[in-house]
This record gives sequence, C-alpha cells and structure tokens, in this order.
Amino acid sequence: MMRIAIPVFQGVDELDAIAPYEILRSAASEPPGLEVVLCALDAPSVIEGAHGLRIEVRDAIPSTCDWVIVPGGGWTRGDQGVRAQIAQTKLARELQRLRATGASVASVCTGAMLLSAAGFLRGRPCTTHQVARDALEKNGGVLVDARVVDDGDVITAGGVTSGIDLALHLIARLCGEEAAQRASTRAEHPRTASIWTRR
Amino acid sequence: MMRIAIPVFQGVDELDAIAPYEILRSAASEPPGLEVVLCALDAPSVIEGAHGLRIEVRDAIPSTCDWVIVPGGGWTRGDQGVRAQIAQTKLARELQRLRATGASVASVCTGAMLLSAAGFLRGRPCTTHQVARDALEKNGGVLVDARVVDDGDVITAGGVTSGIDLALHLIARLCGEEAAQRASTRAEHPRTASIWTRR
Repeated sequence: MMRIAIPVFQGVDELDAIAPYEILRSAASEPPGLEVVLCALDAPSVIEGAHGLRIEVRDAIPSTCDWVIVPGGGWTRGDQGVRAQIAQTKLARELQRLRATGASVASVCTGAMLLSAAGFLRGRPCTTHQVARDALEKNGGVLVDARVVDDGDVITAGGVTSGIDLALHLIARLCGEEAAQRASTRAEHPRTASIWTRR
Repeated sequence: MMRIAIPVFQGVDELDAIAPYEILRSAASEPPGLEVVLCALDAPSVIEGAHGLRIEVRDAIPSTCDWVIVPGGGWTRGDQGVRAQIAQTKLARELQRLRATGASVASVCTGAMLLSAAGFLRGRPCTTHQVARDALEKNGGVLVDARVVDDGDVITAGGVTSGIDLALHLIARLCGEEAAQRASTRAEHPRTASIWTRR
C-alpha cells in the first residue's frame, strides 16, 4: 500500500490539489493500492481556496508517507497561498521531515516554490507555472520545458491542469501503464506526451 | 453581470464541479463579469463527493441565473450521486424552474442524465461520459462525438476533465475569445478543437 499525502492550505489553488486527489483516488484499488489523504497543518479545519471553495479537511499531515504532492496557489499575492506558507516556514519544515523519513516529493503549479523553499530543487530538473519560472530558476532549479518533469524522487508539474498529467504519470509509475490508461479513460483525459524523465 | 450556478449534491464527482468552478471564477473580472456560485438544494451543508472530498456549501440554488452547470458523478451506483438525484426528483424540478425563468443549461459528465431527466435533451445534440452514452440516447438524446456539444441554450460536455473545456468554451461565448485564451493560458490547459456547435 502506497500512501500519498496532499497538503492543502489557505489560498491553495483548488484544481492544483483536487485534480491529482480525484485522479489518484480513482486508481486507489489498483495494485499495490493507493491511500490518498488530503491533509493540512492544522486539522480538522476548513481550508478556503484561492477561488473561494471551502474544503473541510479532517486529516493532519501524516507522520510518514511514500509521496507528498504539494499544490500551488497565491504566488502572485503575499497574504495567503504559497508565498504565505513559505514565509511561515512550518509547511516547508514538515516537508523536510517527511523527506527525511524517505518520502518522495511532487508539486503542481507554484507548489514547486514550496519544494524549492524546502531545498529540494537546487540543481534538479523541474518546472512550475509560467508565473514562477523565473523565480524557480533564480532559486537554483534547472528549468525543463515539459508538463511533467520526473527526476526520480522529485517530480514537478506545470500550471494547474498539468496536475492531472502528474497524477496519471504517478499512477503509471506506482501501479503500471495499464492502470494509468484506465484512469485516463475514466477521466476522459488523454495522456500527455509532454513528460521529461531522466531514464 | 452573468450569474452561473453550479449545483452540487452528495456523491457529486468533484472535478466535474470544481474544474468549471475554478476556470469560470478565474475569468470573473472579464466583461460582462461573471458571478459563479457553488450551491446545493439544502444549504448551508457539507457535500461529500464521490471521491471523499468534503465541500462546505453556503449558498442555496439561486432564484434566477443565466446559466446552470450540472456536474455528474455516481451514475454507476444508485445510493448517491446522479441516480439518487434523479430518483429524488427535487433537483430536476429546480432545473425546470430555473429553465422556465430563462436560464440556459449545461452539464459535465453524467450531469447530462439530470438534464435528460428534466426533459431538456430530447431530440437535442448532446454528449456525456462514456458510461452513460447508451442511456442518454435511449432517453432521446442525439449523441454527438465531441468533448463539448454546444446546441445554443443547452451545452453538454463529456467525462470529467471535459468540464475544463466546457468552461473555456463558455468564457469564449460570454466574455469573448481573448478572455477564453487568457483563461486557457492561466490554467495551462490548451483549448480543445473537439467542440460541436450548430452555428
């Protein structure tokens, strides 16, 4: 059983988080079995997204997991979203703690800036939403022009809807190509060819 | 100002509802201005989606609106989702009431079966998720093979992620091509060519 945690926070971009959540949950019964947890630093709590969606989150960030997928949102404003989370440092420290226990990390959209703040992207091939590409490179990330950049234990995706492609790619890695194809068919979302991988 | 209502219900497919919600909200400031309301028959309430997401919904279904976008979910199970909503008849009657006040209607995924139950799709070009295509045709819908089927005051979209394409198409209709292109760029979701339209 693989455990995947998706931490959300005030000002999170809704689709960044919920697209991978749904796509991965839809493959939960595929071997080896996926447990997908939407979680927050302070839970239970109500998280209000960047577009006003109010999500009731019951689970705290787990003590261990196999993958963490960090969504973005709010990079172009400072009072909430990714910039506020970076300033508060608590989520980045949680990511470092999970990484130290062996978790692999992924991001959608400007969630890459949180991975970057946690120190995971220095010298690593990566991508983010167009609005943050310059900042990501300035922080030491090696920008790649692809919707999904798979560098092994660190995977980053581009803006918003590329989180769907990230999820389908992760299903392919964890559960196999056939499972990913089934998830793609269920979601009626064609697999993207825009995936960079080191292998 | 155009008002768009997206009614959700227990067992709703999360992405069916939230993808159009976010894409349309992101274009809210484009002329003529969009007001996008996530609403439910009984509000305030917590709606639990087909994949376990818990959404706090504050707004009841409005008394009037320009467009209603009906999401799907739960067609392959009877205890909740679209099938349960059809059995309970209350949401279909609300849709009929809104339609009588001049609202246009749209659906994502198996939300088309709710439009069909309300009597809006008989003899009309339309589409739905692959799992419901036979049932939609049996109910008198004229199936079209496209991600988005625009028949004027009735627009239907295919499965799950085609709700993103529906939203971008609706922005093009309501706010113009440039606004739709900006929304597409923001979401990093290319516009689909798979749109059927009568015009």
